[in-house]
Amino acid sequence: MDIFQTNKNQKRLVIIGGGFAGIELAKRIDTKKFEVLLLDKHNYFTFQPLLYQVATGGLEPDSVAYPLRKIFSKKKHISFRLAEVFKIDTDSKVIETNIGFIPFDILVIASGSTTNFFGMDQLQKNALSLKSVTDALDLRSFILQNFEAALLTTDINLQKRLLNFVIVGGGPTGVEVAGALAELKKSVLPNDFPEIDSQLMSITIVESGANVLGVMSDFAQRKSKKQLEEIGVNLMMNTQLVSYDGRDAQLKDSSTTLSASGKIETSALIWTAGVKGNIPAGLKPDLIVKGNRIVVDDFNGVKGVKDVYAIGDVASIEKGAHPMLAPVAMQQGKNLARNLNRKNENEWKPFSYFDKGTMATIGRSRAVADLMFNIHLKGFLAWMSWLFIHLMLLVGFRNRIIVFINWMWNYFSYDRAIMLIVRKYNKKSEP
Amino acid sequence: MDIFQTNKNQKRLVIIGGGFAGIELAKRIDTKKFEVLLLDKHNYFTFQPLLYQVATGGLEPDSVAYPLRKIFSKKKHISFRLAEVFKIDTDSKVIETNIGFIPFDILVIASGSTTNFFGMDQLQKNALSLKSVTDALDLRSFILQNFEAALLTTDINLQKRLLNFVIVGGGPTGVEVAGALAELKKSVLPNDFPEIDSQLMSITIVESGANVLGVMSDFAQRKSKKQLEEIGVNLMMNTQLVSYDGRDAQLKDSSTTLSASGKIETSALIWTAGVKGNIPAGLKPDLIVKGNRIVVDDFNGVKGVKDVYAIGDVASIEKGAHPMLAPVAMQQGKNLARNLNRKNENEWKPFSYFDKGTMATIGRSRAVADLMFNIHLKGFLAWMSWLFIHLMLLVGFRNRIIVFINWMWNYFSYDRAIMLIVRKYNKKSEP
Repeated sequence: MDIFQTNKNQKRLVIIGGGFAGIELAKRIDTKKFEVLLLDKHNYFTFQPLLYQVATGGLEPDSVAYPLRKIFSKKKHISFRLAEVFKIDTDSKVIETNIGFIPFDILVIASGSTTNFFGMDQLQKNALSLKSVTDALDLRSFILQNFEAALLTTDINLQKRLLNFVIVGGGPTGVEVAGALAELKKSVLPNDFPEIDSQLMSITIVESGANVLGVMSDFAQRKSKKQLEEIGVNLMMNTQLVSYDGRDAQLKDSSTTLSASGKIETSALIWTAGVKGNIPAGLKPDLIVKGNRIVVDDFNGVKGVKDVYAIGDVASIEKGAHPMLAPVAMQQGKNLARNLNRKNENEWKPFSYFDKGTMATIGRSRAVADLMFNIHLKGFLAWMSWLFIHLMLLVGFRNRIIVFINWMWNYFSYDRAIMLIVRKYNKKSEP
Repeated sequence: MDIFQTNKNQKRLVIIGGGFAGIELAKRIDTKKFEVLLLDKHNYFTFQPLLYQVATGGLEPDSVAYPLRKIFSKKKHISFRLAEVFKIDTDSKVIETNIGFIPFDILVIASGSTTNFFGMDQLQKNALSLKSVTDALDLRSFILQNFEAALLTTDINLQKRLLNFVIVGGGPTGVEVAGALAELKKSVLPNDFPEIDSQLMSITIVESGANVLGVMSDFAQRKSKKQLEEIGVNLMMNTQLVSYDGRDAQLKDSSTTLSASGKIETSALIWTAGVKGNIPAGLKPDLIVKGNRIVVDDFNGVKGVKDVYAIGDVASIEKGAHPMLAPVAMQQGKNLARNLNRKNENEWKPFSYFDKGTMATIGRSRAVADLMFNIHLKGFLAWMSWLFIHLMLLVGFRNRIIVFINWMWNYFSYDRAIMLIVRKYNKKSEP
C-alpha cells in the first residue's frame, strides 16, 4: 500500500520518532503543505517524566503513555506507522525500515535518546535504567522480586545487599527515583513485607559532581540535599562508579568519605548517570558530536544536508548545545513546524530556548522548583506545582483523570497499589 | 528464615494458589487455630472475568489484578510467598517448591485451571488463549500488531486473513471476546486505522455444540445468539476445530454450512474451548479424573488422603463435579474454611453449590443473565447488572474506582484508550 497519498501541493514529510519533539512538530505542521508520516518503533508516546512512578508502583504504565495513532486519528494527512528505521540515505532521499523503503522530501530526525553506559558492558548487563516503559516495568518487577528474595534468607548480609538500592546519577531522574524508594521504605515495605526489617533497606545516590541536581539553582541544590537527607537518602557526592558486577559497585572517590575498599555491596543498582542520542545509521560520521548527537544549525537543519532536520535530544545546535530536556524538544518541534509552514526561507526564525524552569520531586510532599522571574520554591508548594504542571502536560484526558485519582489514592492511603510482577525480571547475574 | 511462627495451639495450613478459592479460604480461616501460608507463582490475584477487557484495550491489567500481599497485609498469621510448587508429598506432609521444602499439617490445593489444548501441539503453538494477565496482554499486542500489519500490504487476501478473528469455543469467555472485538471493529478500527477498510474485519465463533452459552438457559442461548448476530458476529455451531497451523483453521462439521474445503483462512485464532485442572506433581494417578481434576469427597477432602483438600477448578466432587466457575470456587473456599474452623469433625457440613446465576456481556449495552428465582434478563438491563456485580466483586477500592472511570470513558467516548504494545507478541509462525 502506498503510504503517501500526496496531492500536488504537498511535500512528503517523514518524522522519525514520536516523542516530545516529533509530536509537537506533527501537531503544528500545515497539512495543506505537507503529507506527514510519523514513524516510531513503539505504537505509543511515552511521558518520560512520570516513568519513575511506574517503576515504584504509583502509576500504571497505561496512564503515562498514549497511543500515537489516537493523537492524530482526527487529522487528515498525518499517518503513523509502527516501524524501526535501519538506515537513512540523504542523497537518494529514502529511508530503509523494517516495513520497507520510504521516500521523503523532507526528513526530521526526532529519535530521542537512550541510556548511556559509556561502553561499560558489565555495568550495562547488571544495572537497571529508566528511559522507557519496559525499563520502568522491569524496575518495578526487580524491586518487588528483591523484596521477595529478602524474605527467603536468614543471611543478614544477603538481605542488606538485596535491599541496598544504589542510584548512580544525581540528576532529576536519580533524585526522583531515590525519593520514591524512600517512600516505599517508609510506608509500603513495613505493611506489605512485615517480616522484613525495613531498616535494612538503604537508598544511596552516587554522584560524580559536588551536588545533586547540578543543572538547577544553588537554592534547589541546597534544599534538595536537605530534603533527601530528611527522608533518609544517603548522598555520596564527588564519587564515580568504576564498575559493577551485579554484587559489588566499585567506586572512585575524590574526597575521603569512602571505606578502604571503595566498594558498596548491592544487587540493586539503578543507572541514571548518562544519556546519548539515538541516531539511525547512514549519517556521515563528522555530523555526530558529543553525546552521540547530530550537529545542526540554528534552524535545526542537519549541517550541510539539505531537507534533513534533527530536533530534540538527538540534536545538538552547533553554536551551543541545549540540555536533553522535554521543554527543549517541544520548543524545537514547534519552531521547526513554524519555519516549515512559512513560504519563504528568509522568513525562518532561528531556535532560541525559553527556559520556563526546572523542577524535581523528592518523595511525598517535597520538591524543588526553579521557575521564571527568579522564583525558587521548595517543599509542599513546589510539590503541588509539580503535580499540577505534570497533570496538565499529560496526553489524553482519560490519562489525566486516572493519574489524578492514583495520586489522591497514594497520598491519602500512603500505599502504592500497582505492584504486580507481570513479567518477571531476569537478573543477568546472581546476587 | 523459618516461614512458620506457629504457636502451640496452631496448625500449619498451606494453601497452594491465590485465586478465588484460595483467597476466600484464607480470608475466613480462624488464625487462632491456623498459621496460614499462601503460595502462588504470581504475586497477584487475577480477576479472570475481566481479562477479555484487558485484551481489547478497555481496562489496564493493573485494575483487574490485585497484589496478594495487600489482601492480607493487615492480618496476622497469614503469610504469602511467591513460589512455584514442584511436588507434593502427602506421606511426609511436605511440599517441594522453588523456594525450598515446606512442611504442612493441613494442605489445601487451590491451584486452579489452565487452557486445555487437548494435546494438539500445533494448535497450542499457533493459537492465543485468555486465562492469565500475560495471556491478555499478549492478545492485546497481537490484535494491534495484526491491525498494523494489515496496513502494510495491498494483498486483500492477506488483509482479510489478518483481520479474520476466529474464536473457538462459545462459552462465556468466547462470547465476551467476540462482543468486545465487534466493538473494536465498529468504533475503534475506523478511527484509529482509517486506511483499513473495517468491513474486512470479521469475527466468528466456532462452537462444537448446537448453541453458544450452552451452560445457560434456553432464553439466554436464544437471546445471546440474536444479540451476537445484531453486532455482526458469525456463528458456526456444531462445528469442531481439527487443526490450526497459524494460517488455516481446518474444521469438521456435523451440519452442512461449511465450504467444500472446510477451511477458514485466519491468522488470528483465539482458543477458549477448554480448561483443565492445574495439578502439582506427586498425587497418585487414580486421584486424577476427567478434566485433569482431583477427585474429592463432599467436604473437598482429597479421596483417601488425610489432611489434604482441593477446592475450586482443580477439585472434582466425586458425587457430581461442579462447573469450573468462580462462584463454585469461592463457595468451596468458604465452606472448607468454616469446616476447618469447627472443633469437631462430626460438625462438618458437606459442600453444596448455591447457584446465584450466570451472565455474559455481548459488546456494548448487550448482555444476557440467568438470575435466581427463574429471572432471565437480556439487553441493557442485563448489561447494567453485569457491570454492577462485577464492579462489586473486584478486589481493592482503588481498582473499583479506576474500572468505573474506564467504563464511563469507554461508554461515552466509544473509544478504547489502553492500546499500548508494551511487549511485542512474537507470533510463532508467519501469517
